[in-house]
Amino acid sequence: MGIANFTIEARDGQARAGTLETRRGEIQTPVFMPVGTYGSVKGVTAEELKTVGSQIILGNTFHLMLRPGVEVIEKFQGLHDFMHWDRPILTDSGGFQVFSLADRRKIDEQGVRFQSPIDGSQVQLDPEISMRVQKALGSDIVMVFDECTPFPASHETAAESMRLSLRWAKRSRDAHGDSTAALFGIVQGGMYDDLREESLQGLTEIGFDAYAIGGLSVGEPAEERAKVLNFLQDRLPQDKARYLMGVGKPEDLVDAVANGVDMFDCVIPTRNARNGFLYTSTGVLRLRNQRYQKDERPIEDDCPCYTCQNYSRAYLKHLDKCGEMLGGRLNTIHNLSYFHRLMASMRSAIQAGTFQQFSREFYASREKSPSTVA
Amino acid sequence: MGIANFTIEARDGQARAGTLETRRGEIQTPVFMPVGTYGSVKGVTAEELKTVGSQIILGNTFHLMLRPGVEVIEKFQGLHDFMHWDRPILTDSGGFQVFSLADRRKIDEQGVRFQSPIDGSQVQLDPEISMRVQKALGSDIVMVFDECTPFPASHETAAESMRLSLRWAKRSRDAHGDSTAALFGIVQGGMYDDLREESLQGLTEIGFDAYAIGGLSVGEPAEERAKVLNFLQDRLPQDKARYLMGVGKPEDLVDAVANGVDMFDCVIPTRNARNGFLYTSTGVLRLRNQRYQKDERPIEDDCPCYTCQNYSRAYLKHLDKCGEMLGGRLNTIHNLSYFHRLMASMRSAIQAGTFQQFSREFYASREKSPSTVA
Repeated sequence: MGIANFTIEARDGQARAGTLETRRGEIQTPVFMPVGTYGSVKGVTAEELKTVGSQIILGNTFHLMLRPGVEVIEKFQGLHDFMHWDRPILTDSGGFQVFSLADRRKIDEQGVRFQSPIDGSQVQLDPEISMRVQKALGSDIVMVFDECTPFPASHETAAESMRLSLRWAKRSRDAHGDSTAALFGIVQGGMYDDLREESLQGLTEIGFDAYAIGGLSVGEPAEERAKVLNFLQDRLPQDKARYLMGVGKPEDLVDAVANGVDMFDCVIPTRNARNGFLYTSTGVLRLRNQRYQKDERPIEDDCPCYTCQNYSRAYLKHLDKCGEMLGGRLNTIHNLSYFHRLMASMRSAIQAGTFQQFSREFYASREKSPSTVA
Repeated sequence: MGIANFTIEARDGQARAGTLETRRGEIQTPVFMPVGTYGSVKGVTAEELKTVGSQIILGNTFHLMLRPGVEVIEKFQGLHDFMHWDRPILTDSGGFQVFSLADRRKIDEQGVRFQSPIDGSQVQLDPEISMRVQKALGSDIVMVFDECTPFPASHETAAESMRLSLRWAKRSRDAHGDSTAALFGIVQGGMYDDLREESLQGLTEIGFDAYAIGGLSVGEPAEERAKVLNFLQDRLPQDKARYLMGVGKPEDLVDAVANGVDMFDCVIPTRNARNGFLYTSTGVLRLRNQRYQKDERPIEDDCPCYTCQNYSRAYLKHLDKCGEMLGGRLNTIHNLSYFHRLMASMRSAIQAGTFQQFSREFYASREKSPSTVA
């Protein structure tokens, strides 16, 4: 097994505050992982990520194997040196992105064959190839190669898909071998409790360093997602980290932490930043609203980030309006700072045994509609 | 008169090393001024500009009066607070940009009326309005409002244009009043020596804090530009700073410094950076060349900039290929670092009395064609 010791330091209800050990250092949970699709969290440097509190970032295997390609990354002994980031990196397996190619992919027992969206060439991705690419990337937390079950899916389709993912999980485990990188299994099964249970049991029999919850954030209603989370919280191994893939908005993070989840990744804070959509402790601030045109205040009064310390809403609005790249960068710094501060607040509340109160206050402060951020 | 005391510390041939005093601090010349069109040097912060050695930046009156507009800037008591830059700012008058609108502008004795490229509205720009806008921007070095004579232009057209600019220069002087900001006159006259002389004489009679050379970088051949520079170098007041507007490439800067010019601005280092066009002491490195795909070296081995200290050509090439905004930012940091180091090297050479040798070595090191940067 790889290095992924997980120590739970405090519990409050189902919520957990812990420390996840990786071969590149410790991560304090609950943790949010910014997404660096092509080997860069868009617009910001490693130093800036560290300043706002990023402990670990995510790289996309699918994108990186196409550009710059494994050969280039290997020349740099992995993604860390290539992109100048020395903290842990988690890589996805490429399965989710292949899933999004729809009609340009062909799945069989061996894996997936797809047409490269970059140059149209035929590309193969399967458990063995995914493990090889993630190894080349120098990933510290490797994800098994699986199929993401679409929503909606019939019980039969979801079952077939989940069982294929289980067979691929076994092959991923074998191909991963004795690497010191952690290998996480991914629980699939769509919206069906019995299939989620079968998936989890199959994965724990194979044995992984930790378990992720996959197949959510694929268009399902919030209640369906809550049902799955609620079903799994008692059944996932208590002593392993839990990772909810591709989630989410601040309220989703608070919900999921309440349901015992420790790790998250999502493009929301970074992508929305580039569209002038800013997160604050009192809700969303839409920079494109005319009301901010002469607003001298920072995005958020008590935010310690570089952006809030030095720039006004009016300036950020101006940059956004003119399409100035500095705007996307400054907004990204703020949004990541907010997400990381939110996670740190939850951690503190769990440690203090005040998570319920934190959660109540979190929802109360956001009851106003987004357009009413003062 | 405004604050623009110019002290020449050393001369070497026609080349000068000096110090220009402004109301926001001193500038060591020869100096290159990065262009911050919309109140941001694209992609980089004030802190990064200072780190690479920017002493003063340029803002564009034409762009800033349209977006965010004078009202917004006034709320912030000027551009400095708005954009978080506390060193000197030079603003152009808007004349050059209006000139580029071609068929959407109408010139008369009073000034220029044009259609806003942003919202199609009718906008007036004339000496009094330009002075008012530049004052609102909090500019430390204000440029007179003039007409940029096109190339080619007949003697008659160039003469009429230059004389209109002279009358506008007088109105600019009157409207500028007793501001502590410096006001620079702009020598026009196209490619005609007699008109350049008439322009310069008219301007010195009005009296300005320093003199700029306008109407170049408008498509004229290099020899025509050299002729104008050569003609003016003996005639411009020796004790005032000299500013060659809109120039240029590294070799243009070395040429012009040899001809007694002290100040420059140009979008070349920043715009070209965003297109993967990088400047080094041995010539241009075109990042889009396939040869750099696995190149582990920095852009330039002995460059002290953040980009060269932390990133490889292969990574920068990858970012450029993927359209990642971090790429434009990192390339901009390098190019500005190179331009500022080039200016500092010229200054040192002038102080050491070795400018001729510097100039010879500069050209020798760049004799290879751009694509041969090793």
